[in-house]
Order: sequence, then C-alpha cells, then structure tokens
Amino acid sequence: MGNTLDAVLTALDNGQGAALERLFNILRIPSISTDPAYSQSCEAAARWCAAELTAIGFDATVHATGGKPMVVAHWRVDEPRAAHVLFYGHYDVQPADPLELWHTPPFEPRLAEDAANGTVIVARGSSDDKGQFMTFLEACRAWRGAGNGLPLSVTVLLEGEEESGSPSLAPFFASHGAELKAELALVCDTGQWNAKRPAITTGLRGLVHAEVVVRGPSRDLHSGMYGGPAMNPIRGLAQLLSRLHDENGRVRIPGFYDGIVEPTPEQLAQWATLDFDEAAFLADVGLSRPAGETGRGVLEQIWARPTAEINGIIGGYTGPGTKTVIPSEASAKLTFRLVPGQDPAKVLASFQAFARENLPADCTATFINLGGSEAMHVDTGMPAIRIAVDALRDEWGEEPVLMGAGGSIPIVKAFKDTLGMDTLLVGFGVKDDCIHSPNEKYNLTSFHKGARSWARIIGALAG
Amino acid sequence: MGNTLDAVLTALDNGQGAALERLFNILRIPSISTDPAYSQSCEAAARWCAAELTAIGFDATVHATGGKPMVVAHWRVDEPRAAHVLFYGHYDVQPADPLELWHTPPFEPRLAEDAANGTVIVARGSSDDKGQFMTFLEACRAWRGAGNGLPLSVTVLLEGEEESGSPSLAPFFASHGAELKAELALVCDTGQWNAKRPAITTGLRGLVHAEVVVRGPSRDLHSGMYGGPAMNPIRGLAQLLSRLHDENGRVRIPGFYDGIVEPTPEQLAQWATLDFDEAAFLADVGLSRPAGETGRGVLEQIWARPTAEINGIIGGYTGPGTKTVIPSEASAKLTFRLVPGQDPAKVLASFQAFARENLPADCTATFINLGGSEAMHVDTGMPAIRIAVDALRDEWGEEPVLMGAGGSIPIVKAFKDTLGMDTLLVGFGVKDDCIHSPNEKYNLTSFHKGARSWARIIGALAG
Repeated sequence: MGNTLDAVLTALDNGQGAALERLFNILRIPSISTDPAYSQSCEAAARWCAAELTAIGFDATVHATGGKPMVVAHWRVDEPRAAHVLFYGHYDVQPADPLELWHTPPFEPRLAEDAANGTVIVARGSSDDKGQFMTFLEACRAWRGAGNGLPLSVTVLLEGEEESGSPSLAPFFASHGAELKAELALVCDTGQWNAKRPAITTGLRGLVHAEVVVRGPSRDLHSGMYGGPAMNPIRGLAQLLSRLHDENGRVRIPGFYDGIVEPTPEQLAQWATLDFDEAAFLADVGLSRPAGETGRGVLEQIWARPTAEINGIIGGYTGPGTKTVIPSEASAKLTFRLVPGQDPAKVLASFQAFARENLPADCTATFINLGGSEAMHVDTGMPAIRIAVDALRDEWGEEPVLMGAGGSIPIVKAFKDTLGMDTLLVGFGVKDDCIHSPNEKYNLTSFHKGARSWARIIGALAG
Repeated sequence: MGNTLDAVLTALDNGQGAALERLFNILRIPSISTDPAYSQSCEAAARWCAAELTAIGFDATVHATGGKPMVVAHWRVDEPRAAHVLFYGHYDVQPADPLELWHTPPFEPRLAEDAANGTVIVARGSSDDKGQFMTFLEACRAWRGAGNGLPLSVTVLLEGEEESGSPSLAPFFASHGAELKAELALVCDTGQWNAKRPAITTGLRGLVHAEVVVRGPSRDLHSGMYGGPAMNPIRGLAQLLSRLHDENGRVRIPGFYDGIVEPTPEQLAQWATLDFDEAAFLADVGLSRPAGETGRGVLEQIWARPTAEINGIIGGYTGPGTKTVIPSEASAKLTFRLVPGQDPAKVLASFQAFARENLPADCTATFINLGGSEAMHVDTGMPAIRIAVDALRDEWGEEPVLMGAGGSIPIVKAFKDTLGMDTLLVGFGVKDDCIHSPNEKYNLTSFHKGARSWARIIGALAG
C-alpha cells in the first residue's frame, strides 16, 4: 500500500490546479439554503455535486426531499471483507450579508495572499463546507486514478440544509437508512488546532434556535401622540434580552444548566497543556474580556459550556433618517449552544416561559422557527481515532489535538442514534476563516494538505 | 362681512368634489423626505403646491435649498392697515412602511367608509399634513372666488423636510426672514379634541433624535466558534436600552428631568374637566396600562412629561430562517420628547454619557443623526386665540378645547425666536388618523369643515 499511497499523494500534488478549478466551480453557485430566493441555486449545487461524483466514478443520485435535495453516491468494492465508510458534507452555505463588507463578491471565488496564512481561497462556502468536502472528493479522485480505484467502499452523502436546521434529514434517514449505513461516518466540517497543527474533534455543542416576536400596541403609533403612556415593544424586547445573562455571564433561564455534564479533570488538564492564548484569541476579533461565565476559561466556555446568543434583532423604523414611531412589534432571533446533558426541547420550553415572565405589561411574546439538536461526544478510544491521529501526524508533522468544538453538527448525533455509526470528525478549517462572516476564506494549504490527509486516512482505514 | 362669509362658505360646500380631486392629486405624490430615493417626488410635490397657489392667485415661488425646496407664496392686500398672516404647512410625508399592512397602496388615495368617522380619505399624508394644509388653501380659494379676494395679506410657507428634522429651515429663515415675517403665524398640523369637538393647541413637546451604534467584535463571528467568550453587541444594546426606564416608567438618564416646568394646578384642573377616558384611549390601540411615569395621568404624560422612545432597532441577521452569527454591530434610533425647561443639547449630551456608561465591556457606542428642538407654549391670552375660539365654536357648535399636544412642531419655536411671531395652532386631525402608521386617513368632515373653519378665521382675523 505504501507505493500506492505515494502515487496517490503525488497525483494530488500534480493536480492542484485542476482541483482548484473544480472547487471554484462549486463556489460560484450561491447555494444559500435559508433563503427561499436561492432554491434553484441549491438544486444546481446538488446537480453539480452529483456530476462531480459521477466523474470520479461513483454511482450518484440526486434525491428530492421536502426541502433541498440530498446527493447520495456509492463506490462499491467487490470484496466481502472490505471496509465501508460514509462520508458526509454539505453543499449549502450561509447568507452572504452584510454584502457591503465583502472586498469582492462572495460568489466570485479568487485566490489572495494573506500575511498569516499564505495563499487563501476567498468565497462564501470556501471553508464552510465546500472547500472542506472537496478535500475528500479530491482524495477519492486521486485514489481512483493513481491508486487504481478506491481501496474501500465509500458512500457519500451531501446535504443542502445544514445551514438551515436540516429539516429533511430525519425523514431521509427513515426512508434511506439502509442505503446510508456503513461501519463508520467521516465528516469534514471542523477545524484544526491552528494552521499548522491538525486536530480531530471529539465533542460538539448542540444547538437550538428560536425567534421571539414581541407585540405591544395593535398598530404602529405616533410617538408624539402616544409617547409616554404607550408601551413600546422594543423596550419590552430589550428588557427581556437584557435579562438573559446575569452580571457574571451566566444564563438566567431557570433550569438552563440542570443536568450538564462537566468536563472531567483529565479533559481540563489536557486543554491546559494546549497553551491556549485567551487574550490573543479575543484580540484577534477586537475584544479584550471573556463574556462567558466568570471563572471558566475561554476554551471551556466554547467547548463545554452552553450559551444564549442573540443572532439578530429588528423592530420599528430602520431606514435612513428618523421616524417618530412606536412600532407594534419587534423581534429577535436567538440560538442556544448546548452541551451534553441538556435536552433541546426542555431548553426551548424554559426559554419561552422565561420570555413570557420577563416582558413588561402590554407586551406579549409569540415564538416561531423553533428547533434544534443535542450536543454529542465521540468515544476517544475508538480505533478510527488512532488511525486518523497517525495519518494526520504523517501529513502535517505535528501531533494532532483531540479537541472540543463550539459549533454544532447535528447529523453526528443522528448517525449514532439512527444508523448506529460512530463518526470521525477531521477538518482543516482555521479560526480566522471567517465562516458565516464577510470575506470567508480557506487556506490553500488546508485544501491541498486536507486532500492529502484524507488520501492517507482512506488508505489506512482500508487496512 | 357676514354676507361675504356666507358666500365663501357656500362656495366651499358647492366645491367639495373639486377640492377632493385637488387633494387626491397631491396625495398621489410620494414625497417621503427622509429617504433620498424620493427626492424627485419631493420636488414634484413642491412644484405642485406652487402651481396650486398660483392658480388661486398667489405669487408663488419654489426656492431651492440645501435639501428639499421651500414653497413661498404671497397674497398682498393693497391697504396699509390690512392684517398680515403667515400660514405654514409641510408637503413631505413619513415613510409608508410597513407596506404589507396597508389595505391599499399608500399613494393611491381613496374614500372609504369608517364606522366611527363616516367617510374618510385614506392615503399617506392625508392627515399629516397634506389634507390639513389643503384646508387652508381651499379656504383661500373660496375667499378669492366668492369673496372677491382675500381680506388680508397672506404669506404661505410650505416646507418639505418637516418629517426629517427641517435641516434647511434655519438657513432659509436667515436668508428669507424679511419676506416671511408677518404679524401672526398660522399652522394646521395638530388635532381636534375628538371628531366633533375642535381644539386649539397651546403647547407642544420638543423633540431630539439620536441614533446609537453599538460595536462589539471587529467582524461578524460564528456563534459556535466564539459563542460564550465573545461579547455580542445586541446583548450590549439591549442592556443599555433596558436601563433607559426604571420600574416606574421614569427615564433614568441623570439630569433628564432637571429644570422641567410642571403644569400649573389650573392646567391640571382644566385637563381634569375634559373627562378623558384613559382606559378607552389605551384600549383603542390594544393596550391596557399607562407605560409612562407612575402617578401621572395619561394626558399629563402626553402633554407635560418628557419621554425616551426607541423608534427602531436592527442588528445581526434579520432575513428568513436562522443564521448563527454574533454580529459586529447593532444600532437603535431614539427620540426624546421634551417639555418646557429642557435643553435639547443637554439631553443629547446626557444620553450619550449614559449610553457609554451603561454598555458592558467590549461594547463601544458611536452616535449619529443627532439634533432636535425645544418644547414650546403659546400664550393663551393672545387675541388670535379668542378669535379662533369663536370661529371654531360657530363652525362646529361645540366649545373648543385649549389643549396640549404630545407631538413636536419645531417651527413654532423658530417663528417666535427668529421672526418674533406668535403662532395659532388649529388643526383637524383626530386621534385615530393613524398618522405615521399604515392606513393613514383624514376624516372627510375634517377636510370640509376644516376649510370652512379657516374661512371663518380668515374673515375674523381681517376684522
């Protein structure tokens, strides 16, 4: 296998230009799943992925769902003892707004030079998740060409609703579970420890989302005629939101922390060895003081503590100039990051009760867009972790970090609960990739060495 | 004069259809001054007003300014002892959003039947202020035709920036003060006590406006990667806004109430005789409890107490669905209604200091769009008030109310300070006109009897 792997890696080195061209093609499709205006682009992205997988030699299908299509593709090795893995990625991306902060249009990918990272690929989705899942596809393509075919059976599942709550996932698992089932799931949607040191993610926070609409007067009012006696729903909403956290950064929703599994002393000790520079982490994004719970380290706040976050707020007049209005409603979008031990349904119910209790008289709350999923932890003792640690060490020349992650990939929980599969989370994002922000980028090194890493992992998993 | 007045009133009765057609023509022009997209419409509205005044027999001019044009027109009576009044109105209107709440397009005026008010004229600006200033122009037209000319000298000033802070007013007064100066100013931009009982407004609150932009991280962040340690500026803004009022509805900005002139016991006694139904006033707009200062009546809260109001708020993701972002900024538009004794500049400075002191660590505030004007009170003993009381009683058959008003008409202060003129504030709006709201309307009775009221006042002022 050693010679074959060398040939595969050489093929990846020699094919960098063509690989980049393929990535640029998928980056040009504005597949924003949360906004219905981009439905057709999402479908185009799904078709592009299926065509790409077909070109590599997979048997690929675009499955219609109630929402965005699922792309499923199979490479079958005709050998009863062959390993079989399921690779998961998502072809949808976050909205690109605020557009005016992008230096170049978000769906016109380009290479740029970056002082900290060398050459980078700039485009919405370059890091989350198109650049990442393409590392795996490029590894498959190289194994197919230079390796004379993939050395194990691979099923690929590419979803188009990861950025919008994955509503079609559960029904699709129910109808296509048997087709998706493998021995192990692979996901490339996480980050490295830093640009040079690889990582395997062994814990992910859960996420629930809720939008609260606060209503006051039955219609918009003139603030001269009603200002004073009329309750303003923006005032009510501000009161509610200001009570979400206490002065120590703790979430004040009753029961919010009940049942939480605290990190073990061993975990905390391992994190301490990482020499994480809290001040630099915050200073990088213009901040100076951890805003989470007092007494918890920044890594602990991100990897092991839940949050209540306000992602958006709107109410009243927001155009140019002044409008002396008391609006009839105002609303806020919230998400809560969860850790093991928290039940999404309970968190949502507690939040709703808390909101109702913390509004002033003449303000009512209604809730829309409710949903979410639990946190998850991977068993760090499983053999795939050891295999990936070795492969990543070989590729990057640094000891891989087994780390937590503050983000949420709900499908990992579904793989375990519905299909009985463990998941290996290996990704090549770095913390300044600006995912979900303007000027998202992916290091060219992440893209190239990411593909090489997967090529090694594929070889090692095939045994 | 009695027979002439009768002829003028009869002419108004017989000309209702044509008068309505003229009003509809100006209502069709979307002259939203605060939004630069409607600049050309504002200029068209100014030209329309000048043409209308010319048709009545005025000598009318459209004056360019740094902002929207001023329309100035003169009717000169060639008699040295003739009275001379300046009439002021504004041809600009508030933005029409939220558009989806209008039953019909805001700039397509129509008549509708209304259970409480009979026939009403529905359109943005029908009550504020196009319908109102047209009552005066129709009275002039009738005096010109049936009365053989106006019995006194009249200057008309129609402004196009009343809804956007009147930035061009001070420079225009400086350059054209002599041309505008008269013995008395008349303004038709206020309301009646109710649909059947007329009123003269003798007090107006002042208004200052400010927009606060709260910044947190230097860029939008992913709430998975940063949620917990990263300060969210929406959280900071909510904290600041939630501290504007205490639990008794009092504004918490230090010094805010310093120097305020309290209503006299006589004023409070007069207001008590009005049998104002606080519960019905609030219930009309879906509310049940006065949100202003505990211990102050609703009329007092509107007519004699200052406010801090949040007119708009925006931050983060506000499109469909969910976006797990920690935004880098959030902002709110505020206005403060002022009463006599408050200094606009002091209020703005105190608010800015208060905002800076009430933000959490890692949130900074910047301020834009700052400005405003003082409150004003009219001397209720001046002869014009007595003349108008008689004329309104004759027209409406009810005793006019001398009342306060919660709104702000900064020009009244400027007339006094710059041109040395007192102002008579007579208007025919009613409280359910929905000014600044969707489905703004003006009672047909207000329009017709309003014109008749001005015809009477013009006759009486001419002596």
